[in-house]
Amino acid sequence: MDKVYLDYNATTPLAPEVQEAVIAAMKEAWGNPASSSQPGLKAKKIIAEARSNVAFMVGAKSADIVFTSGGTEGNNWILQMALKYFREYRSSDNKKNDKGERGCESIPHFITSNVEHDSVKCVLEHFEEQGLAEVTYVPVSHKSGMVEVEDVISALKPNTIMITIMLANNESGVIQPITEISERLLKTVNQPLRTKRVLLHTDAAQALGKIPVDATDLGVDFLTIVGHKFYAPRVGAIYIRNPNKDIPVYPMLFGGGQERDFRPGTENTPMIAGLGRGAELIHKNISKYESHMREVRDYLEEKLKKEFGSKIQINGKFSASQRLPNTCNVSFVKKGLMGHVVLSKVKFLQASVGAACHAQNKPSHILLAMGVSGALAQNALRLSVGRETTKAEIDVVVQDLKETVESLMS
Amino acid sequence: MDKVYLDYNATTPLAPEVQEAVIAAMKEAWGNPASSSQPGLKAKKIIAEARSNVAFMVGAKSADIVFTSGGTEGNNWILQMALKYFREYRSSDNKKNDKGERGCESIPHFITSNVEHDSVKCVLEHFEEQGLAEVTYVPVSHKSGMVEVEDVISALKPNTIMITIMLANNESGVIQPITEISERLLKTVNQPLRTKRVLLHTDAAQALGKIPVDATDLGVDFLTIVGHKFYAPRVGAIYIRNPNKDIPVYPMLFGGGQERDFRPGTENTPMIAGLGRGAELIHKNISKYESHMREVRDYLEEKLKKEFGSKIQINGKFSASQRLPNTCNVSFVKKGLMGHVVLSKVKFLQASVGAACHAQNKPSHILLAMGVSGALAQNALRLSVGRETTKAEIDVVVQDLKETVESLMS
Repeated sequence: MDKVYLDYNATTPLAPEVQEAVIAAMKEAWGNPASSSQPGLKAKKIIAEARSNVAFMVGAKSADIVFTSGGTEGNNWILQMALKYFREYRSSDNKKNDKGERGCESIPHFITSNVEHDSVKCVLEHFEEQGLAEVTYVPVSHKSGMVEVEDVISALKPNTIMITIMLANNESGVIQPITEISERLLKTVNQPLRTKRVLLHTDAAQALGKIPVDATDLGVDFLTIVGHKFYAPRVGAIYIRNPNKDIPVYPMLFGGGQERDFRPGTENTPMIAGLGRGAELIHKNISKYESHMREVRDYLEEKLKKEFGSKIQINGKFSASQRLPNTCNVSFVKKGLMGHVVLSKVKFLQASVGAACHAQNKPSHILLAMGVSGALAQNALRLSVGRETTKAEIDVVVQDLKETVESLMS
Repeated sequence: MDKVYLDYNATTPLAPEVQEAVIAAMKEAWGNPASSSQPGLKAKKIIAEARSNVAFMVGAKSADIVFTSGGTEGNNWILQMALKYFREYRSSDNKKNDKGERGCESIPHFITSNVEHDSVKCVLEHFEEQGLAEVTYVPVSHKSGMVEVEDVISALKPNTIMITIMLANNESGVIQPITEISERLLKTVNQPLRTKRVLLHTDAAQALGKIPVDATDLGVDFLTIVGHKFYAPRVGAIYIRNPNKDIPVYPMLFGGGQERDFRPGTENTPMIAGLGRGAELIHKNISKYESHMREVRDYLEEKLKKEFGSKIQINGKFSASQRLPNTCNVSFVKKGLMGHVVLSKVKFLQASVGAACHAQNKPSHILLAMGVSGALAQNALRLSVGRETTKAEIDVVVQDLKETVESLMS
């Protein structure tokens, strides 16, 4: 019998339509998009179409989209832009209190949550280590898995340059209150004519393809887009609100002028073509994807509850917050049923204990941050369903888990 | 009749074997290489094989290779590493002459040529603008198109941190004397027990796939690898000599720990698979590729000379230096035959006037640096042949140019 893959939050296969787009671009649009050869002109056209589709997926205009090599580059770049923005527009703030020397400038302040992905968390930690920034890690509530908007707003300081909070958590699936934060921010700090603007960034890596995402509704200045979480290739893009009009752009890389000089490097046409096709599938089918995944995930949780009752705990399911429709984070209560042990014994299930990039035998810092005990966090499994996951597969998984747990307990 | 593409220095199509590798990886190895699912384990294996093939292509070990999104990222990263290396190991050099304040440290010095690609040139210019480094641009000789080794060595200063010179020029095809520079550097500065090491980097983007490249023979610390110049995809890699043993590695991006934490971000498995397959083709067939391209390029130049005689000038062909076997940079002597005008009128030829990323109606700074006059530089065409280019196609191109020039002159 076939394995059942329930690790769609780690990565997704490429949709057949996406594969077709990649292959067609690879064969026919291999030219340099900056050249006027036929395959170059074709590439240019494909990239423009992809940009338009990616923009449409997040409620933006083509001009707001810059392609990147993936989410890690996107997040690193956006956070570095905030540093440079501060240096250019705000670093004189505290000069007056001082001798006016360069070394005595205040450093920028970032506000983030304590459940961010490593591609935000590690960048901010690096800034702190290097003395480039100070960071407030707003804890998520144990009652909702969300940051409290009030806590975010009270963390604002005169030198705050950016709030960066993910749209949906990769392990718990909890959706963060970005729109509320942006509304409060607009009222408190970012009023018209105020120069001390606080930038707002959300990493939408896990949300895209699972729930509707609209950058304008969210009210963000930056949003990170990652293809391989939504059945598209391992490249990405960032949304910048009216680049170089509302939001100044500071490149991280320098070179041959591609992407309006925002992000040089010869364009990865086939992967961009796939990203665009993946985005098009989403803006056409998001309701269908969302409701299918929700139905299957809810079925999974019902079956688990029925089979294991109080022997399990669902992590991240709160009445006070919304969750991604596809994510089920579950811990076996009993000692010895560590997530990685269970996964090493199952016959059919393929899943993970948390973010794929982490050591599998340590409790997840995200679950700990949500108030899950160390013992339960160590026993957690992240089960994430996909567009094609069937209830029959869920039945197989639950039976598989039942037999595995029985054998481990015997 | 079909167009004749002679712009292989701008980009290449993907070799059929490379396309197969990309497609197979995309379909079967879509898993997250960090996960233990079947498609994840397959991805991990494919990436390891690709790394080994890329390493073998440049005479290195797997451990010396780190995958990147392309040449622009590679060059930016390597130059940034030099800044950080200086800050960590050398920035105290001049402290003693001073009050020991951070702001008074000396800044690092880079040595480069005046014919580098924008992904090196623009980075160094940015460093200068930001006051982060000083740069010596060693001019290439008008008699060889090469930097003189002596000029490079005499440019060394106490604060020199890196020499970065391309292996082969993208427009003239002239091969730079990297081995000689590394030998002289070893004798002058980088002697055992000397702590003030000067790092040596070469951007091998245009050389790979056209001539044999061996990082050990070259004696470099860093080497940039770009897939799309050798019939492989739009990703790349960098060679670092014994990373974190001989040469310390400073990541540019922070995140989920991939690529030994040197370059995080979920691996672009299909593109990496293609890069590996492209590299394998090169280490198997480089002599064949090289001699075929040389034969066809030499045939092109003979035909051009026969047809146009003193009405053309071949740029970059010197007895004192070697050229890439595929590159022919040629200018029509007569006024009014600007490269971009000729290219807009030809029926079959597809080529460019220089680096694809540049405005097509300005004379190339590279040709000017080589001593080509402004008028001739403006009239230049860069014709670069590929693995499959035939003499019959060359006949078509020369006839095409003949008719175009006649019609423009009439």
